[in-house]
Amino acid sequence: MGNKSSPTAVVIIIGNEILFGRTQDANLSFLGKRFDELGIVLKQAIIIPDVEEKIIAAVNESRHEVDYVFTTGGIGPTHDDITTMSVAKAFGIEVERNQEAVDAMNKYYEPGKLNEARLKMADIPKGATLIDNPISGAPGIQIENVFVFPGVPLITQAMFDGMTDRLVGGLPVLTENIATNLTEGTLAEGLGKIQDRYDDVSIGSYPYFKKGKLGVNLVMRSTDQVRLDNAGNEIDDLIKDLNGQILNK
Amino acid sequence: MGNKSSPTAVVIIIGNEILFGRTQDANLSFLGKRFDELGIVLKQAIIIPDVEEKIIAAVNESRHEVDYVFTTGGIGPTHDDITTMSVAKAFGIEVERNQEAVDAMNKYYEPGKLNEARLKMADIPKGATLIDNPISGAPGIQIENVFVFPGVPLITQAMFDGMTDRLVGGLPVLTENIATNLTEGTLAEGLGKIQDRYDDVSIGSYPYFKKGKLGVNLVMRSTDQVRLDNAGNEIDDLIKDLNGQILNK
Repeated sequence: MGNKSSPTAVVIIIGNEILFGRTQDANLSFLGKRFDELGIVLKQAIIIPDVEEKIIAAVNESRHEVDYVFTTGGIGPTHDDITTMSVAKAFGIEVERNQEAVDAMNKYYEPGKLNEARLKMADIPKGATLIDNPISGAPGIQIENVFVFPGVPLITQAMFDGMTDRLVGGLPVLTENIATNLTEGTLAEGLGKIQDRYDDVSIGSYPYFKKGKLGVNLVMRSTDQVRLDNAGNEIDDLIKDLNGQILNK
Repeated sequence: MGNKSSPTAVVIIIGNEILFGRTQDANLSFLGKRFDELGIVLKQAIIIPDVEEKIIAAVNESRHEVDYVFTTGGIGPTHDDITTMSVAKAFGIEVERNQEAVDAMNKYYEPGKLNEARLKMADIPKGATLIDNPISGAPGIQIENVFVFPGVPLITQAMFDGMTDRLVGGLPVLTENIATNLTEGTLAEGLGKIQDRYDDVSIGSYPYFKKGKLGVNLVMRSTDQVRLDNAGNEIDDLIKDLNGQILNK
């Protein structure tokens, strides 16, 4: 899909609460959309528990394989926040109290509230670069090509949007959506033929049930607007040929 | 966390649409909750694109590591539905038109509607066992310890709930939740000490911002009700000692 030379990424979602179904992850869909805009290809995401050896393994398996690794979750002040220490271990480096992080947190907390537990969030791997947290003070961390974000979506989103100048992107991925009342089985043959003619446009077919009605959302993705438009027009024609309705565009 | 002898699982979520942020996965949180009830420990989840070699690698890396592998997504009739064929290749077996699957689909489709594209969903790896689909006919697939489900949550949920007798579970994971208006930094020290005394209770701390107010949800998980209750009581006492409020229980 898209430009072969586009930079690549992996997202590592760290948190027991995602795995046992208590919390619905919301960071991946945010990051996925941003990667399209930036022209970064997300190769995969992995969701792992708050377990040191799992974090170390996931970081070390990813950071040499792709251009950018993003972790979310586990950088707060409590006992189950072990991401920073684990990522430091993945790189074989120590953490140390970071004055820049302490200063950032001092601006956020009322006098006397920056206790030792909170200061744990200022223990940063040596040589790491901080990622500014405009919401709650405690910074994220960049070590080489690994970017460490918190789990709370609001904070992660603000932090990510403040650091994208550190990322070298590629051609943005452009998207077109067509919804139809036809079902996948009706569309499949013609759609497959269009896909065969457009190997530079990724055509996804996503069935839906809405208010008791079946239909399909078709999503086309490409870095080339002309090819995207042409594929979209062919899909429009296919839907009409099959006596279907184009429900939105 | 929990019983060391509990069966283990991996979930493989297959779908470009999840990675590029168009679709919010809803199957993991459903499966995660069911695994708790069944006493199955979810070791990790991985989200990969609709790419054959990625699917083959993910299935083969997982199926010898854990007791159960569950895949979601990519078993429909369109060109981008390549999960069945890829899983078959992971096992080195062929697919063939399966009469039991054809019969199941014939009950669902109106006469004449079961075209060749739809019949692709009846092409099943040789020797596989079908998983009944009470919603839309086309079955899921079990090959050894690998269970192949569709992506549409409503269908996957119905199919999963109809096949749990094939799974050997462990001790169910019991959960208790306590919400408080205290913040993580205030709770962290005392909470860490409680966690140290309860290595058979996993205590998770999840900060929230709701209607402009900060607070924490604490989630305790254990297979032992008495230990769970005792840890919960200690956390209640901690919150009271810190002049916090217990907001729900």
